[in-house]
Amino acid sequence: MKFKNFQVVPKMIFGRGSFAQLDEVLAAERKHADDFVVFVVDNVHQGKPLESRLPVKKAQDILLWVDVTDEPTTVQVDGLTEQVQQFSHKLPVSVVGIGGGATMDLAKAVSLMLTNEGGSAKYQGWDLIKNPAVHHIGIPTISGTGAEASRTAVLCGPERKLGLNSDYTVFNQIIMDSELIAGVPTDQWFYTGMDCWIHCVESLEGTFLNEFSRAYAEKSLELCREVFIENDPNKDDKLMMASFMGGMSIAYSQVGACHAVSYGLAYVLGYHHGIGNCIAFNVLDEFYPEYMDEFRGMMKQHNIQLPQNICKDLPDETIAAMVKVTKSMGPLWANVYGDSWQEKVTDEMLTKLFRRI
Amino acid sequence: MKFKNFQVVPKMIFGRGSFAQLDEVLAAERKHADDFVVFVVDNVHQGKPLESRLPVKKAQDILLWVDVTDEPTTVQVDGLTEQVQQFSHKLPVSVVGIGGGATMDLAKAVSLMLTNEGGSAKYQGWDLIKNPAVHHIGIPTISGTGAEASRTAVLCGPERKLGLNSDYTVFNQIIMDSELIAGVPTDQWFYTGMDCWIHCVESLEGTFLNEFSRAYAEKSLELCREVFIENDPNKDDKLMMASFMGGMSIAYSQVGACHAVSYGLAYVLGYHHGIGNCIAFNVLDEFYPEYMDEFRGMMKQHNIQLPQNICKDLPDETIAAMVKVTKSMGPLWANVYGDSWQEKVTDEMLTKLFRRI
Repeated sequence: MKFKNFQVVPKMIFGRGSFAQLDEVLAAERKHADDFVVFVVDNVHQGKPLESRLPVKKAQDILLWVDVTDEPTTVQVDGLTEQVQQFSHKLPVSVVGIGGGATMDLAKAVSLMLTNEGGSAKYQGWDLIKNPAVHHIGIPTISGTGAEASRTAVLCGPERKLGLNSDYTVFNQIIMDSELIAGVPTDQWFYTGMDCWIHCVESLEGTFLNEFSRAYAEKSLELCREVFIENDPNKDDKLMMASFMGGMSIAYSQVGACHAVSYGLAYVLGYHHGIGNCIAFNVLDEFYPEYMDEFRGMMKQHNIQLPQNICKDLPDETIAAMVKVTKSMGPLWANVYGDSWQEKVTDEMLTKLFRRI
Repeated sequence: MKFKNFQVVPKMIFGRGSFAQLDEVLAAERKHADDFVVFVVDNVHQGKPLESRLPVKKAQDILLWVDVTDEPTTVQVDGLTEQVQQFSHKLPVSVVGIGGGATMDLAKAVSLMLTNEGGSAKYQGWDLIKNPAVHHIGIPTISGTGAEASRTAVLCGPERKLGLNSDYTVFNQIIMDSELIAGVPTDQWFYTGMDCWIHCVESLEGTFLNEFSRAYAEKSLELCREVFIENDPNKDDKLMMASFMGGMSIAYSQVGACHAVSYGLAYVLGYHHGIGNCIAFNVLDEFYPEYMDEFRGMMKQHNIQLPQNICKDLPDETIAAMVKVTKSMGPLWANVYGDSWQEKVTDEMLTKLFRRI
C-alpha cells in the first residue's frame, strides 16, 4: 500500500480581524519596485466595505473582480490568466483569492496557469500540473467548501466538471478571518455550510477513511452541529474551522456519492456546488441512511426549501448527460464502493437516482 | 491585535507501514551523486528491527545514534552538528529525526545549527534563528509530545531549559506510521501520552485560546480518552493523531502552568519531560480543577505510580533554582493569567507548589 504524501497549506492566520494583516503578508513577497500582486475578488464585494480594505497598490497591482454567478469555467480561468499576462510581462509575486470556493478556485487556477502553458482544460484531472504555481493566498468570505485547505481547483471544462488536482494547487498562505463571513445571506450560508457537513459524511462513510481523515471529519462534523443545530455564539469562527477541518479530511480521503451526483447536476443544469450538493444529498438515503434525519432537520430548522422535481420531466438525453458526468468520477465512486465500483455504478442505477431529483 | 502567521509542517504521510516510503521521500531530495542525508536516531532502536529498515546509503550518509536518557542539551546539539560538519564540507540534503520528542528535537536543532553559527545556546528563545534550516524530517516512534507538529526544539542550555522557537524549526516533512509506536514500555507510553493530554488541558484553559486551538485541543483530548480510558482497538493510530493535533493546538496557543513547573523539575533534577509533566500536573489542582479526576483516574487505570515527596526535603537553594527556571517562562504564565501574570507568579507561590511535589 502506498500512502499519500499530503501537501497542506504551510502558513495560516486565524482570527477575527486578521484580514488587516494581508498587506504585511504581501510586503514579504514584494521584493522589487515593479513587483505586483493580482487580486481575484468576488464581485459581490464591489462597492462594499471590503473593497476599501483591499491592500491594492494602485500604481502596480491588478484587481480582477470576478463573477461567480455561474460555476467557474476553464474559459474564465484562461481569460483571467490572459488579462494578467497582458498587464505585465513579469509574473506577479502573489495571486490573492478573496471570496467563496469558486473565487478561491479561480485564484488557484490562475496562479497555476501563469506557469503552466496550454490552457486550463488540459490540466483537469489528477497530478497533471508540471510546474509550481505563482505564490497564492486564499481568503474565504463564505465558509464550507474547504477550498482554503484543498489540493483542487474545480472547473467546468469542455467535457466535464473536474478539478486541477495537484500539490501545486494548494495555497501557500490562507487567512481565516471570521469577520468576513458575517452578512452572507442565509440560503448561501446554509448551502455552503452543508458542503462541509457533506464532506465529513462522505469521508467518514468512505472506504478511503483512515484515522487522520476520521479525526478531522469527526471534529468538523461536531463543529457543524454547533453551528447549524446549536446556534453557538461563536458560530462564525466555528464554521470557519469546520470548513478547514472538513477540507483537511477529504484531502486525505475523498468525497463520495453526493459530490459525484452534484457534479452531474452542476455540469448539465448549472446548479451551484452548495445547492447542488443539498439537492443531491436529499435523495441519497441508501448511501447515507444514518445522516438523513440530521440533514433534513437542519433544513427545517433554517427554513430551507430545496427545488423539487427538477429532473422528473427532463428529456432522456439530459439525464444521460448527467449520468455520464457522474459516472466518470472514478475516485469518488471508489471511495463509496471500493475497487469494484464499476460493477455497481451502472447507468440504470444513476438514471433512477437522477429521476428522483 | 496581531495574529500569529502559523507555520505548519507542509507535507505529511500518515498510515500503518508508511515508514517504508522514507527512502522515496529522500530520493526527491538527493539531486547530486555526493548528496548525503543525516539520520538522527534514538539508540533504543540500535540492534532492533527498525535499524535494518533505515534507508541509509552506506557509501554517503551519516547515521548518528543518540542517547536521550537525559534531556537533550545545547552541548549535545553542538556536538552532533560538529560531527556532521566534520563528515562533509557540504550541507546534507536532509536531516531525519527518528524517535520520541527528544530525538526529533535534536534533529530539528541540528538542521538549524548547520546554517546558523555560534552554537545552539545563543538561539534559545523566540524567533532568534536567522537562516532557514536544512530540510528536515520527523518520524515519531513514541507519541504524545507533539514535537512532530511544533515550532520548537526544547534544549537544556547553560542557563535554562528553553526551546529554539522559530518558523524554521518546523519540520519540512513528517511520517506518522503507527506501527513504529507499538512496543513502547507502558510507563513511557503513558507519560508521553499524558504530555499530549496536558497540552490540550493547558491550551483549553489558557487565555490565548482561540477557535482554531480549541477545535484541535478538543479533538485531541477526545482521542486521548479513546486511547487511555476506552482502550480503543485503533489506539496507536489515534494516539498518533492526538499527538499531532495537540501539537497543532499549542502551536497556535501556548502551554501553561504544568509545563512551566515541569521545566523547573527537568532543569534542576533532570526529570524527563513526560514524567516531569505528570509529577507537576498532580499538584496543580488549583490550576486545572476540572481535569484532576480524569488524570488520576487514568493513572489508576494503567497502574502508574508517580515518585512521591521528591522536593519535600530538598535544600532551599535547590527549590530556589527550580522556582527561578519556572518563573522565567513568561509566555507560559501569560497564557495562564493574562498580562498581569507577574503579580501572581511569585517566588512564594512557586516555592509552596514545589514543596508539595
